[in-house]
Amino acid sequence: MSEFDLIIENAIVVTADAAGRVLDKGGVAVAGGRIAHVLPQAELEPMKSRAATVIDGSGNILMPGLVNTHCHAGDCLFRGLVENLPLEAWLQTVWKAEGAILDPDTTRLGSVIGFAEQLLSGVTTAMDMFWYPRATVEAARAVGLRVAAGGIFFDPPGMDKKTANSRQGDAERFIAEFADAEDVIVATMPHGAYTVSPDNLRLAKDIAEAHGALYHVHAAETRAEQADVTSRYGRSVIRHMDHLGLLDERTVLAHCVHLDDEEIAILARSGATAVHNPVSNLKLGSGIARIPDLLKAGVRVTLGTDGAISGNDLDMWLAIRLAAMLHKGAGMDAEAVSTGQALAMATREGAAALGAGDRLGTLEPGRFADMAMVDVRRAHAVPLFDPVTHLVYSANKSDVRHVFLGGEQVVRDGQLTRIDVSGPVAEVQAMAPKIAATIA
Amino acid sequence: MSEFDLIIENAIVVTADAAGRVLDKGGVAVAGGRIAHVLPQAELEPMKSRAATVIDGSGNILMPGLVNTHCHAGDCLFRGLVENLPLEAWLQTVWKAEGAILDPDTTRLGSVIGFAEQLLSGVTTAMDMFWYPRATVEAARAVGLRVAAGGIFFDPPGMDKKTANSRQGDAERFIAEFADAEDVIVATMPHGAYTVSPDNLRLAKDIAEAHGALYHVHAAETRAEQADVTSRYGRSVIRHMDHLGLLDERTVLAHCVHLDDEEIAILARSGATAVHNPVSNLKLGSGIARIPDLLKAGVRVTLGTDGAISGNDLDMWLAIRLAAMLHKGAGMDAEAVSTGQALAMATREGAAALGAGDRLGTLEPGRFADMAMVDVRRAHAVPLFDPVTHLVYSANKSDVRHVFLGGEQVVRDGQLTRIDVSGPVAEVQAMAPKIAATIA
Repeated sequence: MSEFDLIIENAIVVTADAAGRVLDKGGVAVAGGRIAHVLPQAELEPMKSRAATVIDGSGNILMPGLVNTHCHAGDCLFRGLVENLPLEAWLQTVWKAEGAILDPDTTRLGSVIGFAEQLLSGVTTAMDMFWYPRATVEAARAVGLRVAAGGIFFDPPGMDKKTANSRQGDAERFIAEFADAEDVIVATMPHGAYTVSPDNLRLAKDIAEAHGALYHVHAAETRAEQADVTSRYGRSVIRHMDHLGLLDERTVLAHCVHLDDEEIAILARSGATAVHNPVSNLKLGSGIARIPDLLKAGVRVTLGTDGAISGNDLDMWLAIRLAAMLHKGAGMDAEAVSTGQALAMATREGAAALGAGDRLGTLEPGRFADMAMVDVRRAHAVPLFDPVTHLVYSANKSDVRHVFLGGEQVVRDGQLTRIDVSGPVAEVQAMAPKIAATIA
Repeated sequence: MSEFDLIIENAIVVTADAAGRVLDKGGVAVAGGRIAHVLPQAELEPMKSRAATVIDGSGNILMPGLVNTHCHAGDCLFRGLVENLPLEAWLQTVWKAEGAILDPDTTRLGSVIGFAEQLLSGVTTAMDMFWYPRATVEAARAVGLRVAAGGIFFDPPGMDKKTANSRQGDAERFIAEFADAEDVIVATMPHGAYTVSPDNLRLAKDIAEAHGALYHVHAAETRAEQADVTSRYGRSVIRHMDHLGLLDERTVLAHCVHLDDEEIAILARSGATAVHNPVSNLKLGSGIARIPDLLKAGVRVTLGTDGAISGNDLDMWLAIRLAAMLHKGAGMDAEAVSTGQALAMATREGAAALGAGDRLGTLEPGRFADMAMVDVRRAHAVPLFDPVTHLVYSANKSDVRHVFLGGEQVVRDGQLTRIDVSGPVAEVQAMAPKIAATIA
């Protein structure tokens, strides 16, 4: 048996580590699914004879797999179905379609589509909030990425036809089943402060705390949500959650668009993560999150795609590029959000938000060998001066050629290796008339 | 000889015409480089035997080639070189690099890269402002797209080492040489009101008017530009240009970010076009143009990529998507800018701005057969409910499989047919150290 399962050589290596280390020419050696070495080519060269597989990374950037910290992969079934509505009216229509179509099988199908898109674009870990989290895990495993998932809390009748009462048991069973899995990060996932009572928000947190699980919730996405929560509880969303003791390092808040200075200070003090979803926030007319202010205050900011029903895709490359350029334009400040910060949101910071900063999100010895190779020889992206600038502004999802999960090649030359996605693609397209009829 | 050179069948046809006509299944018949028929499949079927070539468009949207109304293709040499600076400081650095590197040969090389990217993404006509317009035309012809170009006016010593005095003759010679070409739309191109004197702005317009040519100029891109022009001439940029009589239906103004209500009314009254360049405006911190207000006032709005030195690519798909979603988010109005409006900016309206509304920009009988086929069976873009929504929000440049210019297939399965771009790609990459040294 070889000492190394895999060596990738001759690449431009963007480690995305805290020091921003970049190797002009080098690679990694992988053993037992983990990165054993990250080395310049000269030092890697003599190791090649001890590797089972050697892949030439010439003309490619080797980088950590991306971490998407907010999505709803199953919603790919509804991509482009509901358009040109503000969030509240949009949600009513979305829920009508979801209620008519979703079950574990359709969730698995939609999630395979959503995870296929993500893995093909180099995303190797996704935090996914959806009605049937077991089906979500099955889909992620079929495609080949890690997933953070968990039981939903939602007080009205849910799209999964479950009632609020049954959710505690479901959430606990999910954690028990997947707590020890290397490819699942367990969580509880209350939908939001406007759809879940204070008691149930707290219950979901108690369950998470009892098992060291994550807590993932939509928060402060729209002005209407802030007004609704404030009128019901006398406190804005973040203050309400803080008052209930829900905010800490294991809390991941999707959106955080509408925050005042004090709410930003609360987030900074608590250690909770704000997930920036620029595509969804723009398209639904929610607004533009105060990312430069959040960063300045020391809040952990990560990136998400949200679902394809709002987005209309799950493109982390677009999220990265918008994170870097949207706030420059909105604030008329060409120095707002650096390329390094934007890349960190989608890698190292995302991993840290998921409590996995020690094993995901960078290319460093000891981390899982979750990696993407990005072709830099295409007409739209030459010449290359700085690799990080290149990744943030010139590269796009179609430049991702190979992807590795724990050293296993899960994408080869732009094709998934674990499954043939053409079947699910045809199946989803065939369902379109039935899906469209649900809101006709 | 066959009656038709080409028939494309079985496609979803998005004509992008004024009525928004879409065929669920159909295609086009092409004769003599022009569209002869746009028909549903049943009516196209009997014509197939009279066509030299029949292409199956199953699983694809057939649409008009995109029209990019503001770019600097030659600047691809400097992609990603100058980062994180506001426009004015950024321009000083850019001009340093341009001055050291640019000549007709390097312009041709950079432009081949820029036009290759654009054609591969389905852009069949580009308005390009650059120092050596003859080299620009040569590059466009080598790759296979139409180009609107013309002599630059710029009062300081230019990056082409020419003085203001020689520019009149150059501009007139360019028009004389290319006025009758089917693949060139002639123009004069003063850089801006802050770099060209009122006399020379007027001279460039006189030349354009004498030959029915277009007039293309940067306008109202930044607050600093507005302040500069106002302090010099006592009028804001648009008022200054209006006062000089420069604004009419053949005037194409790049950017138009900073406008007050009266300036918007001036544009509407004049018939001049505002080119929205959302990527560049965001990334350089210039601001967010008032596109919903411009549309409401009846101003013609088109789309541009600007140059890769600001962008950092020439991605019209990103421009379309941002045109549709940026203003929803910035104005918190989920109904701002419809998908139909966004697509029109990149097709029909772009063609009209170039004075070519009768021959470019839509799929209608009599128009040039400039067309793109977009694969709609990929995991990131299924299912498909509405083809226009799909193009605006789910599709991206890598989905473009085939492109036709006047019926000639210039892109086949994602590869250029007129040239092999790998040579220029390698050449540009090899130049990178020399280019970087110019600003070191």
